[in-house]
Amino acid sequence: ALTPRQAIQDRGIDLKLNHEATGIQPAEKRVIVQSAAGTSEETYDYLLIATGASPHTGGIPVSAKERVFFIKNLDDAAALQTFIDEAKPRNCAVIGGGYIALEMLEALQVRGLSTHLVHRRSHLARTFEPEISEIITQKAARMGIKLNLNTAVEAVAEKNGQAAVQTPAGDLFFDCAVLALGVKPNTGILKNTSIKLGVKEAVQVNRYMQTSAHNIYAAGDCAETTNLITGKPAHVALALKANKEGSIAGTNICGGREQFPGTLGTAILKFFDLGIARTGLTKDEAKENGFEPLQFKISSHSKAGYYPGGGLLTSILTVDQRDGRLLGAQLAGPLDGVKRIDVYATALANRMTLEQLYDLDLAYAPPFSPLYDPVILAARVGKKLLRS
Amino acid sequence: ALTPRQAIQDRGIDLKLNHEATGIQPAEKRVIVQSAAGTSEETYDYLLIATGASPHTGGIPVSAKERVFFIKNLDDAAALQTFIDEAKPRNCAVIGGGYIALEMLEALQVRGLSTHLVHRRSHLARTFEPEISEIITQKAARMGIKLNLNTAVEAVAEKNGQAAVQTPAGDLFFDCAVLALGVKPNTGILKNTSIKLGVKEAVQVNRYMQTSAHNIYAAGDCAETTNLITGKPAHVALALKANKEGSIAGTNICGGREQFPGTLGTAILKFFDLGIARTGLTKDEAKENGFEPLQFKISSHSKAGYYPGGGLLTSILTVDQRDGRLLGAQLAGPLDGVKRIDVYATALANRMTLEQLYDLDLAYAPPFSPLYDPVILAARVGKKLLRS
Repeated sequence: ALTPRQAIQDRGIDLKLNHEATGIQPAEKRVIVQSAAGTSEETYDYLLIATGASPHTGGIPVSAKERVFFIKNLDDAAALQTFIDEAKPRNCAVIGGGYIALEMLEALQVRGLSTHLVHRRSHLARTFEPEISEIITQKAARMGIKLNLNTAVEAVAEKNGQAAVQTPAGDLFFDCAVLALGVKPNTGILKNTSIKLGVKEAVQVNRYMQTSAHNIYAAGDCAETTNLITGKPAHVALALKANKEGSIAGTNICGGREQFPGTLGTAILKFFDLGIARTGLTKDEAKENGFEPLQFKISSHSKAGYYPGGGLLTSILTVDQRDGRLLGAQLAGPLDGVKRIDVYATALANRMTLEQLYDLDLAYAPPFSPLYDPVILAARVGKKLLRS
Repeated sequence: ALTPRQAIQDRGIDLKLNHEATGIQPAEKRVIVQSAAGTSEETYDYLLIATGASPHTGGIPVSAKERVFFIKNLDDAAALQTFIDEAKPRNCAVIGGGYIALEMLEALQVRGLSTHLVHRRSHLARTFEPEISEIITQKAARMGIKLNLNTAVEAVAEKNGQAAVQTPAGDLFFDCAVLALGVKPNTGILKNTSIKLGVKEAVQVNRYMQTSAHNIYAAGDCAETTNLITGKPAHVALALKANKEGSIAGTNICGGREQFPGTLGTAILKFFDLGIARTGLTKDEAKENGFEPLQFKISSHSKAGYYPGGGLLTSILTVDQRDGRLLGAQLAGPLDGVKRIDVYATALANRMTLEQLYDLDLAYAPPFSPLYDPVILAARVGKKLLRS
C-alpha cells in the first residue's frame, strides 16, 4: 500500500528498513535497535508497537525447510509460486484447518497439484459451527481434495527428496507442504518489560490503543482487543481490525481521541464456489459466557427461487432464549449470498432481538433476494421457535 | 403462491372467485357482492381489506387498447408476451420513469424490440437522487434505449395500426406501448363508508393493521403505512410490506398481537448489469422533515481493487449534520454489490450515527469487499466532512 520511496519522500517518514527493535525500555523512553551497523538506541515521545503476528508451527518440528512453506505475506506466496514453477511438485499437503489452510487448498488445487489436507481435528474452520464445517468438508471432497482428518502431525522431515509428514499412522509423503496452523503475536521483545500482555501474549490495550506503559500504543495483529458481546479480551488477527486500530492509534498519538470498541470476529471466506461467513458467538461460546443459547438452522434461496443464478443458503443463528437477543450468525452458500452476514454484524452491534430483525425493511427484488430475505426468514422461524 | 384448489382443499377457505365486493356497510358488518348470480350480501365477524393497487393512467386518455399494456400481474405480462410473439412489433414505447418502467425497458430491449422511453421528467426513478438517476439514464442510453425525456404524453391513440403517443412536440409512433405510471390503491368501494382513507386514498391503519372501523383490517398495497424516520403516513406499494402486513393482520384477527412498525422505502432494482438500491430519506425529504441534511457521495470498489469481477460502487449518504445520524443511503453499481443497502436499512432502524457505522465489524475478504467495505469507507469520509 505504501512503497519505501512514498513513505520517505511523500510522507517524510524517517524509514529504517533492516533495523530490528530488540528491546524496549519504557522508563527511559528508549528502543534498542540492531542493524548491519551494530546496536543503537532510539528515543521516542510516543511509541507504537505494530509488530504484527507470525505463523506458528504448533510445536511441530520442521526440518524439510526447502519444501515447507508458511503463508503470511506476499513474499511467502511468491516463494511458494516460484517453487511450484521451478520444482514442479505434483502434490502438496496443507497442514491445518483454518481460513488460511482453506484458501491454500483452493489455490494449490486450481494450480493443478494433487492437494491433501492433514488436520488434527475432524472439524474444519473451527470458529464455525460443526454444520458449516461439514459443508466445507463436503465441498473439499467434491473438489478432489484428499482429506486426512483426525490426523496429528508429529514432525515434517526431509526424506528421499520429499516432505515426510509424520503421523501416528505412519509417514505421508508429499513434494511440498504448507503449514497453516494459525498465528501468534510478535511480542517477544515485550516479555521482560512493564508492558502487559494478555490473550495469546498479545499486547493489552484500552479503547484508545494505549498499552499499560506511558505513551506506548499498540495496534494490529500484535494487539489484544475486546469481544463486543462478551466484553472479554480476545485476540483476533483480521485485517479490518488491524487497519482501523493503526489509524486510531496514529490519530490519538497526534492529539485525537478516537476509540476502537472491539470485535465481533466477523469473517468471510471464499472456498471454490462456496461462500462462508460468521459473526458473533458460536453456541458453545454463548453457553460459556452465561447466555442461554437457542440455535436453529434454516435453508433458503439466496435469490427468488425461480430466478436464475441463485442457490441454497444455510443460515445458523444463535439467540438468547430468555429475550430473543441475537448472539451470533453463520452462513454458507453462494458467493454472492454470504455478504449478508453484515446485516447480522450490524444487528449484533445494536443488540437486536429476533423481533427487531424480523421488522427490518430489507431490500427485495427477485435478482437479489427472495421476498423474505434469508435474514428476515430466519428471524421469522426463530420467533416461532422461541414461542413454542 | 396458492392455487384455488389448494386454498379450498388444503386450507378450507370458502373461496369465491369472480365475485366483486361493491360495497361495505361497517355498521351492519356486511359486504355487498356482485357475481354472475346477481347481487348478494355477506356478513362477517372480521373483515380484511386486501384489494391491492392498480396501475393508473396519469390522466392520459388511452384509446389504442389493443397495443397498449399495463403491467401489474402475471396475466398482464403474459398478454404482452403473446402480443410480441404474434404481432411481432418492431418497436415499443415505455411511458413512465419508475421501477416498473425500468424493468420493462430491459425486458423489451432484451427481446429484440427497439425500445423507447417517454417520460415527462428529466429524472428517472425519482425516489433516487439525481446523481443515481443520471447513472441509470447513461446505462439506458448505452444499452441502446432511445430516451424521450421531458416529454409529456397527452394521449395514446390508435393511428394507422400504430400507437400514436401524442406529445406537445407532435406524435411519436410505435407498434406498442407500455404505460408504467405508478399505482393507486384500490379503495373506491370505501369512499362512502366510515373507513378513513389517507395518503393517495390508501386505507388508514394502525400498527395492528386495524382501520378506523370496528373489526375491519387492511393490509398490502391498499393500506397506508408509516415512514419509520419521519413518523408520517406514507403509501409504499412494495412486496415485503404487503406480505408482512397480510401475515400480521391475519395473526391479529385470529387473536394475536403483532405489529407492523413501518417502512424505510427500501428498494432494489436490476437494470441490465446495473444494480440500484435505496433506503430512508432523500436529501429533499430530510429537509422537508426538519432535519439538517448533509449529503455526500463516494465511489469505491465493490470487491478488493485487484480482485476480478468487481466494479465501482457509487454510494450517496444523507446524514443529519447536527448529530451525524444516518437518514438515507442510495447505491448504484455491480449487481452483487448493491444488496449491502440492507446494512444501511439496519442502521436506520437503529438510528445509527456515522461514528457507529464506522465502528461496525463488517466482513472482509478480497472476493467480497475491499478492506474498508464501502459502508465503512462512506462512514469514514462522512465523519471527516462533519468535523470540517
